[in-house]
Amino acid sequence: MFLSRPLVFASLLLLVSGQRFVRFISTDGKEYYGDAILPSNTTDAAQSTTAHVITGDILGDFTITKQVKKINKLLAPLPSERVRTVRMVGLNYVAHINETNATIPGWPILFYKPWTSLNTPSDPIPISPGYQNQTNFTSEMDYETELVVVIKKKAFNITDEEALDHVLGYTVGHDVSHRGWQVDRGGLPQPQFSMGKGADGWAPWGPAIVSTSIIPDPQVLNLWTKVNGVTMQNDTTANMIFGVAHLVSFFSMGTTLLPGDVIFTGTPKGVQLGKTDPVWLTNGDVVEVGLENVGTCTNQLKYVP
Amino acid sequence: MFLSRPLVFASLLLLVSGQRFVRFISTDGKEYYGDAILPSNTTDAAQSTTAHVITGDILGDFTITKQVKKINKLLAPLPSERVRTVRMVGLNYVAHINETNATIPGWPILFYKPWTSLNTPSDPIPISPGYQNQTNFTSEMDYETELVVVIKKKAFNITDEEALDHVLGYTVGHDVSHRGWQVDRGGLPQPQFSMGKGADGWAPWGPAIVSTSIIPDPQVLNLWTKVNGVTMQNDTTANMIFGVAHLVSFFSMGTTLLPGDVIFTGTPKGVQLGKTDPVWLTNGDVVEVGLENVGTCTNQLKYVP
Repeated sequence: MFLSRPLVFASLLLLVSGQRFVRFISTDGKEYYGDAILPSNTTDAAQSTTAHVITGDILGDFTITKQVKKINKLLAPLPSERVRTVRMVGLNYVAHINETNATIPGWPILFYKPWTSLNTPSDPIPISPGYQNQTNFTSEMDYETELVVVIKKKAFNITDEEALDHVLGYTVGHDVSHRGWQVDRGGLPQPQFSMGKGADGWAPWGPAIVSTSIIPDPQVLNLWTKVNGVTMQNDTTANMIFGVAHLVSFFSMGTTLLPGDVIFTGTPKGVQLGKTDPVWLTNGDVVEVGLENVGTCTNQLKYVP
Repeated sequence: MFLSRPLVFASLLLLVSGQRFVRFISTDGKEYYGDAILPSNTTDAAQSTTAHVITGDILGDFTITKQVKKINKLLAPLPSERVRTVRMVGLNYVAHINETNATIPGWPILFYKPWTSLNTPSDPIPISPGYQNQTNFTSEMDYETELVVVIKKKAFNITDEEALDHVLGYTVGHDVSHRGWQVDRGGLPQPQFSMGKGADGWAPWGPAIVSTSIIPDPQVLNLWTKVNGVTMQNDTTANMIFGVAHLVSFFSMGTTLLPGDVIFTGTPKGVQLGKTDPVWLTNGDVVEVGLENVGTCTNQLKYVP
């Protein structure tokens, strides 16, 4: 009896030690939540081919079962309908602010994407005619890789110290941006973020929400972008002006953050906006956005009629 | 048999002729959708004390029944959870642009509020400590009355001509705004809308969605604001730079608008922002926002701990 207890503990540990939350279609054609099982040579959940099935609600009570299913296709970690609000942070890395000729903000810059902009870690990014190459724009499509925070517990007027207790985990997201609509045609003398960033499918995210038990400190992670295999951004979340804890508490000012809400925390240096000879993204380009210990989203731009 | 047909038509006409969609708590304590019955001397649905009960889904198939219920409290016309996306238009009236020293935009200025900012036509507008009078702000709380469009049918890459077919109707909304966070602390040299406008309860709307059959032309309606009974804004939707049809089609560019989505279409002249001696809203102030042929929302600012 006494001797068996370590075995019980070991078993419990196994069941909670993963928590790389994924959602996927298995070989049986059905959708599951799972705890991704990583191949031995990588921490990129996009490379996972199997997962422990999770029952229940990853935003509430859930069980990581011993049942293992094959992953046929990784979806976004939560259905778009379940993510009630998509918060975005602008200008949160000094070198990115400098490259875009912007000014260092005194407070976090908040904007929103509609939930319809969310996309899976692998599906095409649709580009409608109004956003396709046009001779009357000087700026076009651009990439932005960002660490994404997923809220697990309601937050309202909380402090920085309380903030991380409200976080389920972290994943990576792509803030797809049309600089022409964002800046050139902002309409104001200043840019508007919404028209340049909110189209359907312009926010790939995933492949896994990696729990705060695996990533206790979100400010030490490398993040990168590759366009057609060439590295374009390569930086660390240590360079954020406003860290995750402050962003969560600041955005909770008078405002309820709900389980499933996500916060894209801003992109580091290396975007095309501000370059003398920018190479804008175009039809067929493949963009990989990556975050250390989390994984990658790889999506292709696709012009649609 | 033949003679009875006009009676059938008359009855059908009665059942669809209203379509001032309201949601309310009745004297039995239960919640209903209804078609508001107006008192004879007003078109302000906020004055309605009775409504025909509506069964089904006002965004889909519904029936206006002959059953009449008393209205104990009018709610927002749709539950906040049902409104998936709250689009907002900035700088859409020339005189308002002039008073705030802004520039006339070449394209509609879009921003978002989170759905948690929606409020009923009568409940208090909560002001958390971070938004309460502070000596380190030069700007404070301000009002903005706006015509609100409610989408009934999915819209994607539609034209101006198709736009109004996708609209259920119109109501009035209050874009509660903290100019300190919007402008002074925008963080950029330019304002950010999100921090100054997105707090819980900062978007009262209602009391009725008045159908496009009653309001075929949304560009001929008076709208006004009263603060503690004194008129502060008084203008007409004829003065919009971008009318409803163009806003709906423009925002559908590459972006799916869904049934229940709402669009606040911008405020006319008469706000406090830009005034030499502004009188900012404060704790206890009562703000009425009104739209001709629709009604009024009357909400009190309330400082909360």
